[in-house]
Amino acid sequence: MHNMPRAVVLLSGGLDSATALAVARDAGYDCYALSFDYGQRHRFELSAAERIATKLEITQHVILKLDLTVWGGSALTSSQPVPKDRDEASLSVDIPVTYVPARNTVFLSLALAWAEVLGAFDLFIGVNAVDYSGYPDCRPEFIEQFERLANLATKAGVEGNPFRVHTPLLRLTKAEIIRKGLDLGVDYSCTLSCYDPHSDGSPCGRCDACRLRQKGFQEAGVHDPASRS
Amino acid sequence: MHNMPRAVVLLSGGLDSATALAVARDAGYDCYALSFDYGQRHRFELSAAERIATKLEITQHVILKLDLTVWGGSALTSSQPVPKDRDEASLSVDIPVTYVPARNTVFLSLALAWAEVLGAFDLFIGVNAVDYSGYPDCRPEFIEQFERLANLATKAGVEGNPFRVHTPLLRLTKAEIIRKGLDLGVDYSCTLSCYDPHSDGSPCGRCDACRLRQKGFQEAGVHDPASRS
Repeated sequence: MHNMPRAVVLLSGGLDSATALAVARDAGYDCYALSFDYGQRHRFELSAAERIATKLEITQHVILKLDLTVWGGSALTSSQPVPKDRDEASLSVDIPVTYVPARNTVFLSLALAWAEVLGAFDLFIGVNAVDYSGYPDCRPEFIEQFERLANLATKAGVEGNPFRVHTPLLRLTKAEIIRKGLDLGVDYSCTLSCYDPHSDGSPCGRCDACRLRQKGFQEAGVHDPASRS
Repeated sequence: MHNMPRAVVLLSGGLDSATALAVARDAGYDCYALSFDYGQRHRFELSAAERIATKLEITQHVILKLDLTVWGGSALTSSQPVPKDRDEASLSVDIPVTYVPARNTVFLSLALAWAEVLGAFDLFIGVNAVDYSGYPDCRPEFIEQFERLANLATKAGVEGNPFRVHTPLLRLTKAEIIRKGLDLGVDYSCTLSCYDPHSDGSPCGRCDACRLRQKGFQEAGVHDPASRS
């Protein structure tokens, strides 16, 4: 890993972040993956993140504890039910109850903190503005603004070493993301996208995240190796 | 507290954040104070934050656990020694080893998350660009950029309810901050500014934070009630 620039990659355990990590590695970065144990409804996604980090043989994987249930505010951090079987039109219009207030701002801030310690100037996040769930902090204008902030916020930025926030999936459809990941050798059987899996860790198949994933695999013409059907 | 707008106030337990909290309360906000148990060298500052929150009778005080020692990178989150007896000129020029990478970005992001849950649109932070320690994330341009980010990052911002980051101490000298706090009834005996207190919790008197505080009380012509001398 000598002489390779370091990058911090946000890794949720889902399909998108696994692909973003594979892209970062393929682009020649020495990858440090960051996941959050933020009080999400289930731990299966953290196990998925660990499997992905192991498979892709990255340098370090940190799971940071951060208890966002102290204030709740989302179906993902409280006992509020996760919506199921929403019609397709509403998937990309409303901001759903699974929105976690300021989540990407918080996650990118912590990625920035770790990057500064590592001497890394590259952050990767698997946000997507095409097949997404209407979250405001997945939009390109949010990412650009965060990059500007990072360069004012840090010692490194002030000293003239600019940070870059890479969003390799931003303009891709879910099907294009899947094809790219398969080209890079991502094993999607390791990933978990579901917001509300069954007690054995298998996906519910009915939440927004499951339905966007199903649509993606269908359009890519590929069988989802994590699907039980 | 009915009909009063809510505000989230970052509260470290030091002199500045105690004053910022008193200013927010005096301005008519229903105050929610947020402190971080981030693995700092000592817990005395969290006890100070609790004493201040109790004295000022605010609505809620949350101490969020967030283990920044997993990556270290600062004299405040590792075993690196805290500098003592630095000469005055260097206090406002260099970025010292007590700089915690991206700390205010992380803390403001979490304040923003809580604010969104509370339906609050006002954040208060006691940063100061006059008698400060040279941290990049205490500068006005950083704060303005964070405000822009907040309005792109959140559901509330997208829906047209702008967030404001209030920095009531930004342009004040330490002496002016102290006089303002005394006018508002802040009991500075509750506060702790020291980076490296003695084992009984009393300030070392020699770190940058202690020396800026001493200078402030001297210039204000007031005895520091938290000082043992």
